[in-house]
Amino acid sequence: MTEQDVKLNFETMEAGDFKAFVKAMADYITEYLENIRDRQVVPSVKPGYLRPLVPEQAPQQSEPWTAVMADIERVVMSGVTHWHSPRFHAYFLTASSYPAIVADMLSGAIACIGFSWIGSPVCTELEVIMLDWLGQMLGLPEQFLARSGGEAGGVIQGTASESTLVALLGAKARIMQRVKEQHPEWTDSDILSKLVAYCSKQAHSSVERAGLFGGVKMRCLKTDNKRRLRGDIFQEAMDEDINKGLIPFYVVATLGTTASCTFDALDELGDVCLSRNVWLHVDAAYAGSAFICSEYRYLMKGVEKADSFNFNPHKWMLVNFDCSAMWLKQPRWVVDTYYMDPLYLKHDQQGLAPDFRHWQIPAGRRFRALKLWFVLRMYGVENLQKYIRKQIALAHLFEKLCTSDNRFEIIEEVTMGLVCFRLKGSNEINEELLRRINGRGKIHLVPSKIEDVYFLRLAICSRFSEESDSHISWEEVKISADEALAQK
Amino acid sequence: MTEQDVKLNFETMEAGDFKAFVKAMADYITEYLENIRDRQVVPSVKPGYLRPLVPEQAPQQSEPWTAVMADIERVVMSGVTHWHSPRFHAYFLTASSYPAIVADMLSGAIACIGFSWIGSPVCTELEVIMLDWLGQMLGLPEQFLARSGGEAGGVIQGTASESTLVALLGAKARIMQRVKEQHPEWTDSDILSKLVAYCSKQAHSSVERAGLFGGVKMRCLKTDNKRRLRGDIFQEAMDEDINKGLIPFYVVATLGTTASCTFDALDELGDVCLSRNVWLHVDAAYAGSAFICSEYRYLMKGVEKADSFNFNPHKWMLVNFDCSAMWLKQPRWVVDTYYMDPLYLKHDQQGLAPDFRHWQIPAGRRFRALKLWFVLRMYGVENLQKYIRKQIALAHLFEKLCTSDNRFEIIEEVTMGLVCFRLKGSNEINEELLRRINGRGKIHLVPSKIEDVYFLRLAICSRFSEESDSHISWEEVKISADEALAQK
Repeated sequence: MTEQDVKLNFETMEAGDFKAFVKAMADYITEYLENIRDRQVVPSVKPGYLRPLVPEQAPQQSEPWTAVMADIERVVMSGVTHWHSPRFHAYFLTASSYPAIVADMLSGAIACIGFSWIGSPVCTELEVIMLDWLGQMLGLPEQFLARSGGEAGGVIQGTASESTLVALLGAKARIMQRVKEQHPEWTDSDILSKLVAYCSKQAHSSVERAGLFGGVKMRCLKTDNKRRLRGDIFQEAMDEDINKGLIPFYVVATLGTTASCTFDALDELGDVCLSRNVWLHVDAAYAGSAFICSEYRYLMKGVEKADSFNFNPHKWMLVNFDCSAMWLKQPRWVVDTYYMDPLYLKHDQQGLAPDFRHWQIPAGRRFRALKLWFVLRMYGVENLQKYIRKQIALAHLFEKLCTSDNRFEIIEEVTMGLVCFRLKGSNEINEELLRRINGRGKIHLVPSKIEDVYFLRLAICSRFSEESDSHISWEEVKISADEALAQK
Repeated sequence: MTEQDVKLNFETMEAGDFKAFVKAMADYITEYLENIRDRQVVPSVKPGYLRPLVPEQAPQQSEPWTAVMADIERVVMSGVTHWHSPRFHAYFLTASSYPAIVADMLSGAIACIGFSWIGSPVCTELEVIMLDWLGQMLGLPEQFLARSGGEAGGVIQGTASESTLVALLGAKARIMQRVKEQHPEWTDSDILSKLVAYCSKQAHSSVERAGLFGGVKMRCLKTDNKRRLRGDIFQEAMDEDINKGLIPFYVVATLGTTASCTFDALDELGDVCLSRNVWLHVDAAYAGSAFICSEYRYLMKGVEKADSFNFNPHKWMLVNFDCSAMWLKQPRWVVDTYYMDPLYLKHDQQGLAPDFRHWQIPAGRRFRALKLWFVLRMYGVENLQKYIRKQIALAHLFEKLCTSDNRFEIIEEVTMGLVCFRLKGSNEINEELLRRINGRGKIHLVPSKIEDVYFLRLAICSRFSEESDSHISWEEVKISADEALAQK
């Protein structure tokens, strides 16, 4: 390698080009979002559709940004499912907002890796403070917050699934230590084979998966007739398992289940956990954002008894994915158990501030606190509350329209932005209804099934949703029902 | 909730504001990056510095974007470690480029969750194709690529740590099934307690951590005198373990170790793995990008024997974090073992395209293929090759400067963008040297230690680095050495 090679200019995009490209993209994005209603919500493409649209190999020479921009509609938009359209009612919503997009630009330019405090002090410190802000907004007890001065505090995880797993790993470490003290003669694998964790049958599939990843039994317990995991059911299950020689150590309480947005009886579960010394993790991935409105906090009564709490600002708080907020009362069970501290990551300030790589599964991490900071400041708590209340009101509007048609029934109390409904009658007619709704291509819904009752879920997903959109969605449902019933 | 509430306007940032904000941010970012050399590379702040600079709570009312923008220097930049400064030589580099930043804007606006194909077909399909592009650029054997038509293919993980863990989980599933067939009388925990995985002592700390997460023994093996894990050492370790009744099942070969950028003897390890049916995972997190230059592919000789391969375009290929490229020959071991398929995530095209949530730990995922697409097109393969070669040449330039001063020694062959050097003499004098270098505040390095020899690592990290920067960094090192030796 000669020195001349050093001078090779590899750069293709200079600052001026970047500014022009950014401007074009900002224009495109606003045009896209402001007119998103006009797009077909789910694209009519089949698997494999994309290969013929792009070259088989990366180009050897650089292409101008205008060439890339010119391909966005043809290549990208032809295959996008438009999650931010008011016609999109599937799953739960995911966040997108202008302030978060701009924050991510800055995060991308700073592009630090926040694995340790020294890796970029502001990346860690802003995260600690933002999680304190958030925790206060939700009314979380002080004992979860870093500002309380102890080891407790919040951290941004990528997803709720990772939070559930991190909490499970912490709980596992805690119980292993406790049992080893009581039974020094048992091996790790003796103990491990006895561990048992719990969740509701209605918990998210990632909870069961966390059990598989963590190598422990996960029992999915039955609920009461309101799809809530209750204290007595949990206690009975534990007694059963203890009698079999097993060791209960972890339970996930879901606040806002994916299937029908019900809330486990956190207060009851908390009492049982305290009496049995079981780690209680709260998965409020979707519904947690609503706790910034005090009228919904009754749904998290008992939260002070939990060991860890998680919700996703990247769902319902306008902070783009990925931003899953998690608080731990005793992060030491995760930090100490999976601690790795090679020389190249050591620094002089260790112990005085968290090194967040120890709080999570991956080693690396982006500067994600920026988007929280931008969103919280540029909306302000009051506007975020308005947003939550508006979406819940839109769900109630759809519910009202639905109940005004006596062919339909609402199958779960509407508390948040989700309406679970069905045609009175068989599962088959409801499967047909959904096929027709999605087949018409105007709106998009997904189904769920609880105890063999198949139903449709309509989630309010777009920050652009207005009353008129609920009416349009209802018209689509009604017309599809007319067709389905006529055919039958 | 009355209908009037529905009309509440929660929006605070409209499209026009967004465009103005984006323009201001683009101006700020280019100004920041083009003048990044002038900033102190590591900020002189202490843990806790940020709390007094921001309010204790989130604001109730929205603030204008100009207020946020006005705080960037004061609040954010005061605590940033500038990873993209040519003065930054710590760890390994992390990527940032203009095309990737713009791609992330679009990803943030589309803001789909690509957990299933139907969640946004282009999100899955573009990822499949981009990983084919990338694989071809690296010269990976066809049997890793989706275009080969089988189950194999690539996926974007968040980090190399997650890739190592995902591969370990796949390997664990494969061996569990095999052993159960041979010993149906053994329980899962019998088998689990016998499993043993391997890596080099020089492997990244996340490899050992993957063993902890996966609940299996991880043996960190000694290397040869060039810090390479060799086939015979590996084979001996396995024989030892088999004699103890253990079951070897997984090994991580590192191509480009973090401590000193050495390369395990992949070809030898591959032969051993084939003969013993052990899963071979390649962690080429940093160095993998260099394989787009054919002159470096000798370092991955034997890659066709691996079961999985991983490298980070978010390190050395100008694609912003997070973008860790992983290929699996048999993804089924991960997909099938941790498969969860609730009704609300089912769709009609299952089996015809990958649902990438099954290939990873988290359930949710962003549209990350966009930034790969933008970067590959807007740089083109040739410019990316120039970039790699330029950075390696800059490392060689520093090496030359270092060897021209006979007080210094190079302690590892320089093959990539990392120079490992030290003052001839004691560890103490080198610790003092590093203290002085970092204390002067002009450049930033971290140390490493192998077999009790402490040394300094100088990594070329910035895409803005030029020859003159290598000279400046060398001057800093030399002056600090003068001081350290004078004091002694």
